[in-house]
Amino acid sequence: MVNAPAQIKHDNTASAGPTPAERLWMMSAEDMAAVDALIIQRMDSPVGMIPNLAQHLVGAGGKRLRPLLTIATARLCGYEGTSHHKLAAAVEFIHSATLLHDDVVDESELRRGQKPANLIWGNSASILVGDFLFARAFNLMVETNSMDALGILSNASSVIAEGEVQQLAALRDVNMTETAYMEVISAKTAALFAAATEVSPVIAGRSEGERNALRDYGLKLGLAFQLVDDALDYGGFESALGKSVGDDFREGKMTLPVIRAVAAANADNNAAEIEFWHRVIVDHKQSDVDLETAVSLLRKAGALDATMDMARQFSKEARDALSIFPESPWRETLMDLADFVIDRIN
Amino acid sequence: MVNAPAQIKHDNTASAGPTPAERLWMMSAEDMAAVDALIIQRMDSPVGMIPNLAQHLVGAGGKRLRPLLTIATARLCGYEGTSHHKLAAAVEFIHSATLLHDDVVDESELRRGQKPANLIWGNSASILVGDFLFARAFNLMVETNSMDALGILSNASSVIAEGEVQQLAALRDVNMTETAYMEVISAKTAALFAAATEVSPVIAGRSEGERNALRDYGLKLGLAFQLVDDALDYGGFESALGKSVGDDFREGKMTLPVIRAVAAANADNNAAEIEFWHRVIVDHKQSDVDLETAVSLLRKAGALDATMDMARQFSKEARDALSIFPESPWRETLMDLADFVIDRIN
Repeated sequence: MVNAPAQIKHDNTASAGPTPAERLWMMSAEDMAAVDALIIQRMDSPVGMIPNLAQHLVGAGGKRLRPLLTIATARLCGYEGTSHHKLAAAVEFIHSATLLHDDVVDESELRRGQKPANLIWGNSASILVGDFLFARAFNLMVETNSMDALGILSNASSVIAEGEVQQLAALRDVNMTETAYMEVISAKTAALFAAATEVSPVIAGRSEGERNALRDYGLKLGLAFQLVDDALDYGGFESALGKSVGDDFREGKMTLPVIRAVAAANADNNAAEIEFWHRVIVDHKQSDVDLETAVSLLRKAGALDATMDMARQFSKEARDALSIFPESPWRETLMDLADFVIDRIN
Repeated sequence: MVNAPAQIKHDNTASAGPTPAERLWMMSAEDMAAVDALIIQRMDSPVGMIPNLAQHLVGAGGKRLRPLLTIATARLCGYEGTSHHKLAAAVEFIHSATLLHDDVVDESELRRGQKPANLIWGNSASILVGDFLFARAFNLMVETNSMDALGILSNASSVIAEGEVQQLAALRDVNMTETAYMEVISAKTAALFAAATEVSPVIAGRSEGERNALRDYGLKLGLAFQLVDDALDYGGFESALGKSVGDDFREGKMTLPVIRAVAAANADNNAAEIEFWHRVIVDHKQSDVDLETAVSLLRKAGALDATMDMARQFSKEARDALSIFPESPWRETLMDLADFVIDRIN
């Protein structure tokens, strides 16, 4: 029996019963136990540093949202084989590899509520173990013998890397456009969600229409997820996400809330605000009070509300994408998950 | 018309005619032009940093030995399609991704005779563009529609990463055994050579025996190649390899020459030498004259000769592995290449 990890639990203790994420976990408990077993088996290696480091990241506290999506959508498609376990594990390995490399790139000090692997084992180990997990993901995919699934996930992998490079190139670019931001989050986050859900109809041999619908569901869910994440970075509680509030700000990362606040400062011709954003983002000179100032400017510009509105719109589109499927507990819970991605900010 | 890059040219100006590597290049000129075109096409991206950085590494001065092996062995197997171009490009991308990540891990100051990408674009860009090239390698493999080739190359990729981590864990371990060293070079170097040559009989639909023979050829060639490389690090000419002499030493990397010299010091109970190796490797405290001292200790222990003897043995085994193929210009030149891997030290 696999329990839903604590981090995914709904913070609103007033609400009765399990959250949609918890319901999906319960419905997928047997499948997710098989995925967990595969993950543990395939991150093993006689080179001890590999399982030690991988266990730190993959084994502990991850909410396994992406593999859960593969499992649940495979069930939605009536899939009866075992390839969904391998693809779900592969999806988690790709995600984990990305996190390991991101930690080196971002120099973050907290990951899933604990010290990131690179601060314990060093950057070199994080880079190389990330490479290992990425390669292992492809080993798993090969075992499914589905060239279409391999195509979907290898394509997502190059899109993710492309998005990460684009984000890096736009770091501290206070003039980053909303279009460029949407390109980055579509690539670095939503592409893997979309691939995680698109592989299910493919291995289940379902129609092109269902394949498109599930890719769309994953893509929109991923966009909503990232937008909420970017809003939370300026206002959520540290414990809720397992990431430090203000991480993006301290890195000088341009996200939608900041893009909107900068746009408001420009529209108002507010020299003080323009100077503020230039100093903290472009010059990357920040003092202790700057995060507080940034949050107040975001609130003044309505940037967090605007970000959440956009997230709600994508969440609705994700829900709608599933409407071509007949009613079922899987469909309803996946639809509810789209709402839950928004609710977690409460 | 593609010319053999300068670096692979034989240093011994007294020898007449082209080297085996140059002969293979000439025989494969059309194929290699197609591979080059694919490489340039597939490292492109609207995210400008990607082609810029990739071009710096992949575009300039690489000797393309691994893709050349895929092309030549495919021709040896009478292959007539175009999948060998895609697999050759994929092999070069995997190799390039490894180099990009290695440069960050090793903190080397010279790569292929020029400044490594991470010292120009930064570590983060090198990590992420490496990920991009690695993913693009899998895109190319998927296009060949050969699940067996994908299995071979994805397996090699995880073995390579495992070997890199093992090497990292053994860094500055003056007690590293010869067995552990052989494991590391089998994984980090020879596995990709073996995969590069094994995919050819697979796409050509040849027998299991030929598949085993070509895997063996690549593996042994790769081992010989790495042993020579490790010897050259203590005595070749900088221009010959495009790497700085003494790189391994300065990193505290245990390679066979050092393992042999340390063993000799231990066998002789030579306290001064034992102390020397401990200081430069374990404590990693080195002064300007230490490389010279190290080389003289290697020579005294016969460690470079022993390393080259072992390389010669693997080179011979590589040559022998091809004997199951009927005589042909491809077979002869691939056999000669095995000798050439050794000769390049002259």
